[in-house]
Amino acid sequence: MIMPTNANARDLSDELRAESVVLREKALVDSGAFEIVASLTMEVGPRSAGSAGDAAAVLWAKEMLSSIGFANVRGEAVTVPHWDRGTLDVRLTTPFSRLLVATSLGGSTGTPEGGIEAPVLRVESLSELRQMTSEEVSGHVVFIDHVMARLKSGGGYSAAARIRVCGHVVAAERGALATVIRSAGTSTHRFAHTGSMLYDLTEARIPAVALSNADADILAHAVQSGEPTSIRLRSSARYLPDAQSSNVIGEIPGQGANADEIVLLGAHLDSWDLGMGAIDDGAGVAAVIAAAKLILNSGNRPSRTIRVVLFANEEFGLSGAKAYALEHSGELNQHVMGLEADSGAGPVWLLASRVAESGLNLVDQIHALLAPLNIERGDNSSTNGADLGPLRVAGMPILEMRQDNTEYFDYHHTIDDTLDKIDPKNLDQLTAAIAVAANVAANADGDFGRLAPVQAPTATCVAD
Amino acid sequence: MIMPTNANARDLSDELRAESVVLREKALVDSGAFEIVASLTMEVGPRSAGSAGDAAAVLWAKEMLSSIGFANVRGEAVTVPHWDRGTLDVRLTTPFSRLLVATSLGGSTGTPEGGIEAPVLRVESLSELRQMTSEEVSGHVVFIDHVMARLKSGGGYSAAARIRVCGHVVAAERGALATVIRSAGTSTHRFAHTGSMLYDLTEARIPAVALSNADADILAHAVQSGEPTSIRLRSSARYLPDAQSSNVIGEIPGQGANADEIVLLGAHLDSWDLGMGAIDDGAGVAAVIAAAKLILNSGNRPSRTIRVVLFANEEFGLSGAKAYALEHSGELNQHVMGLEADSGAGPVWLLASRVAESGLNLVDQIHALLAPLNIERGDNSSTNGADLGPLRVAGMPILEMRQDNTEYFDYHHTIDDTLDKIDPKNLDQLTAAIAVAANVAANADGDFGRLAPVQAPTATCVAD
Repeated sequence: MIMPTNANARDLSDELRAESVVLREKALVDSGAFEIVASLTMEVGPRSAGSAGDAAAVLWAKEMLSSIGFANVRGEAVTVPHWDRGTLDVRLTTPFSRLLVATSLGGSTGTPEGGIEAPVLRVESLSELRQMTSEEVSGHVVFIDHVMARLKSGGGYSAAARIRVCGHVVAAERGALATVIRSAGTSTHRFAHTGSMLYDLTEARIPAVALSNADADILAHAVQSGEPTSIRLRSSARYLPDAQSSNVIGEIPGQGANADEIVLLGAHLDSWDLGMGAIDDGAGVAAVIAAAKLILNSGNRPSRTIRVVLFANEEFGLSGAKAYALEHSGELNQHVMGLEADSGAGPVWLLASRVAESGLNLVDQIHALLAPLNIERGDNSSTNGADLGPLRVAGMPILEMRQDNTEYFDYHHTIDDTLDKIDPKNLDQLTAAIAVAANVAANADGDFGRLAPVQAPTATCVAD
Repeated sequence: MIMPTNANARDLSDELRAESVVLREKALVDSGAFEIVASLTMEVGPRSAGSAGDAAAVLWAKEMLSSIGFANVRGEAVTVPHWDRGTLDVRLTTPFSRLLVATSLGGSTGTPEGGIEAPVLRVESLSELRQMTSEEVSGHVVFIDHVMARLKSGGGYSAAARIRVCGHVVAAERGALATVIRSAGTSTHRFAHTGSMLYDLTEARIPAVALSNADADILAHAVQSGEPTSIRLRSSARYLPDAQSSNVIGEIPGQGANADEIVLLGAHLDSWDLGMGAIDDGAGVAAVIAAAKLILNSGNRPSRTIRVVLFANEEFGLSGAKAYALEHSGELNQHVMGLEADSGAGPVWLLASRVAESGLNLVDQIHALLAPLNIERGDNSSTNGADLGPLRVAGMPILEMRQDNTEYFDYHHTIDDTLDKIDPKNLDQLTAAIAVAANVAANADGDFGRLAPVQAPTATCVAD
């Protein structure tokens, strides 16, 4: 074969390209990922940090990675918070009586045993609430009635989740007794959406719950009728002592000069307690395992080490991500690429990255292999992968398989996150894309360079 | 105007046709029905027979009919059964532990306080269960895993509902301890579907519950894994003493020679306890009220009396329908047409009927006025309207606005039956069709004739 004269020195070898195409096409026929997520969701199910399901998931993951034949399968200890939602009862009491479908936000305190009953103050945004005085807010249950936008990018979530994370802080500053938010989700069915919240150190710890969209409609109707509107909350949510969990790891060891370099494929093993954790993040767990399995089974041992990391407790404080960065602080610079699959089970439509200038050509090479999967080329400003945060700020390059999130927030963090929401063909496509990216990253002559460390962002609820 | 020479003597007058077109077009712009169902679902909400919501609904209906200006607004006493579902906890205990989303079927007995835990026997149909011996079934919880078909006609419901009504009878005959069915519904979300069941007099009263489709998948996966599978049920469902409810009635009195003839527009005021009763049957209640209101407000007083009947307790034994037939036994023959709206909020796509041969021409005349609403002409064998049953067997002609039921059984009898499931434009179209049919039936020179009385069918669970 005659090589084109304008061949970039860092173009992939024909062999690597051909191997990657084989992986891609194999995955599209049947990546094996659906079988993995079916096993996880059916046999383990809900697995929130510290729960019995969490421990069962760790066992499941070790067995799964071992049975596939990965090397160095192990759990690395992670201490996790253990919050239990107990029972919750939310009732509109005035101007008419109605039991509302609600869920405690993850980490919320409970109520006194007799519950809290108070008049409702409705606002549509945090900034509206910030403009109110203690006199106006004090003694009320604040209802933050923000409707999350449905977008392919999932971009409506950040504004909605900010209310989830900060609503009770801003309300408590003004003497509110509790907050009730419209779910940070897009489901048009009657499910309330949980997710993490945190207490500000200085403010009172008030209970925070979310209503389903239909139930938020009922509460809004009551308030807008002009009649005095009261609500009663009763919750036995509480913290239990911290618990032990694990990041579960398996590897395909590299060979040769670059064997100590690491291509990290991540997903999180935990889920919220309500659903089965199928799309969040069973799909990601299955896709990274299946992608690595395809490479393992190809018989072509990679140059660099491919490391599958199933993180503990992404959902409620990123305990696993922090523990991993600490445990592996001595080899952070050997992480030449990280990719996390934690965006559900929609099709990948864009390859984004955050790599050094010198690594962009390699991203292009990968994209050329992914284009037949209907994947566009994105920009180089990705911040994807919550579990990759500590590694990213330390300068690790990342790749992102951006998935269609139009329907993701219909299921995410709700009881409705079940296996039937996953289309196996989409999961095969995701797995194909990850397998190609990992294979190229692990075998290319060049790499993605390294980025300068940056300051980790600190989130507060002080201002918008 | 020159009359066409081939005019059928029973063709509608131009005036009646024109008035009907005005009603139709007004309804299409805004029938007022959505506002009515919004009020019922928001301010009253769940209203199962005998509950506080039932009583609130009766008050609401009387006020609504009076405020519109109907005549002879009244409640007619109906004694209703009062069943309370209490709490239910269904857990798969072996081969893995999982809380399942389930609901007691309406009328089910509870369990002993400690619950029932037993191995699971899975069948896919009643006939499969019938072929089994007591030896095979005894001591088990029988899981009837029939998947309801999604059809525009809603036709998958009869087979699914038959399992709901008879499954526990056939299982109890063979010594089963309880039955668990896959919901008689098509929702792909995590909702279990309730609905009435009855006990056979001769067999043991065993608890009967339904699982959501996703949870039935989990149970099926467990059974099909080949591992021994056990389930635990705990339910405090029970009967309370019978309660009082009412059929709520309002009229537009006819005038002239035919004033004592009655055009009955029916819907049922009760709902199941889980959802808000928006599509079942708030939509029907709103459509018949709004249709009659349009006629009332047109200022054209009808020849025949238009009677709106909001039946009590359709869902759990048709108490209201039976009471109405008894209360009005002296005027059954004056019911010249009955139409019940109880098929959700999908668009009407077909006009069906059950009228005397002599009345078919009048149905054609009505259809001509409905054709612009994309309504086809159906056959003359309708048996629509559960509440019309006693009147239909006595010979009353009926009209049926057949609605698209493709999505109806996603919501029907579930917690997800909420206002947001109704598209106001569809409700306007339904209301337009009913207004036209009622206006013609109340004013046409001819009528639908009368049918010979027939024997009421008796349903049993003895055979398929």
